[in-house]
Amino acid sequence: MFDPTKPPEQGENCPFCTIAAVHSVYDPASPPATIDSELTTPSSFLVLSTPTIMAFLDILPLSRGHVLVCPRTHRPKLTDTTPQEAAALGEQVRVLSEAVARATGVHDWNIVQNNGAAAAQVVPHVHYHLIPRPEIRASGRFRESFTMFGRGQREELDDEEAAKLAAEIRKHIADVIREDRGEVVIKSKL
Amino acid sequence: MFDPTKPPEQGENCPFCTIAAVHSVYDPASPPATIDSELTTPSSFLVLSTPTIMAFLDILPLSRGHVLVCPRTHRPKLTDTTPQEAAALGEQVRVLSEAVARATGVHDWNIVQNNGAAAAQVVPHVHYHLIPRPEIRASGRFRESFTMFGRGQREELDDEEAAKLAAEIRKHIADVIREDRGEVVIKSKL
Repeated sequence: MFDPTKPPEQGENCPFCTIAAVHSVYDPASPPATIDSELTTPSSFLVLSTPTIMAFLDILPLSRGHVLVCPRTHRPKLTDTTPQEAAALGEQVRVLSEAVARATGVHDWNIVQNNGAAAAQVVPHVHYHLIPRPEIRASGRFRESFTMFGRGQREELDDEEAAKLAAEIRKHIADVIREDRGEVVIKSKL
Repeated sequence: MFDPTKPPEQGENCPFCTIAAVHSVYDPASPPATIDSELTTPSSFLVLSTPTIMAFLDILPLSRGHVLVCPRTHRPKLTDTTPQEAAALGEQVRVLSEAVARATGVHDWNIVQNNGAAAAQVVPHVHYHLIPRPEIRASGRFRESFTMFGRGQREELDDEEAAKLAAEIRKHIADVIREDRGEVVIKSKL
């Protein structure tokens, strides 16, 4: 449970804390066209970087557009977040859902968050997975692919393709935010 | 994408809209000791009922304490919610995570949300699953149980046990909310 009297445990060797440390915050409504992915090893393909929340491509995606969404501050489980962080996660997962659907053309998706080893949490810095689910029943691969982890087909990201996809997602996030504000947006063509 | 100019499509025969229609809103910091579960068929075991968000026990739980969290208004997918609803979902999923962990004694859990048929969404009214994951690796059942749906062991709720568990979760939610407000709470003993 979040305790405001304790400083957040900084994640020693936490890969998500490393990403937070090296990547600047930017206004998601006006994203940079390019972000250096090689500030971390392995590379990090950022799609969102606010004072509270970060999102980036999973480096072992279960499908194209698989992104992770996490608080900027190290919090092991969802129950370690502040109420404000939890609300911001919920809000950004919605924005990212729309942006990833537009970028990938896949309009079905899972949101998954694993808390603790028995729930298959690997990186102990709370994160939502957003996993596009292309319709692949026809090929008979549906049942295999539809496991949470460990049995799905995960392939390493291609750096060039990943950089392009991340830029597209950032642009779509900007569109969604501006549409939510009631602005008329000419849809991105990338 | 949420369009404020269109009235929400009311879910005809939507089981979650039926629950919303028959159950009153109450202050989650002061929950009723009992809530009639037989206002709907099948029974509904409510644990949260605010003007924006509802939560209740899954009637075919994957584990004890499996709850569903959804907006009160009919929204098919997460991208159909308002930014405010998405934020409230994120906030309440955190509160429920802590409350369910206290009620069940299980401190690892998954949060899962399925959007669309290819992602295994069954009820087309967006909802987060919160699924406690007791440590059961020792028994060799870990791999089987750790599938999202369709292969886990789901058993129908026992009504008497469910009513008791729902009341415990409501009481723990009240504690969490009051602790978040900075109140000193004498932990519930139920």
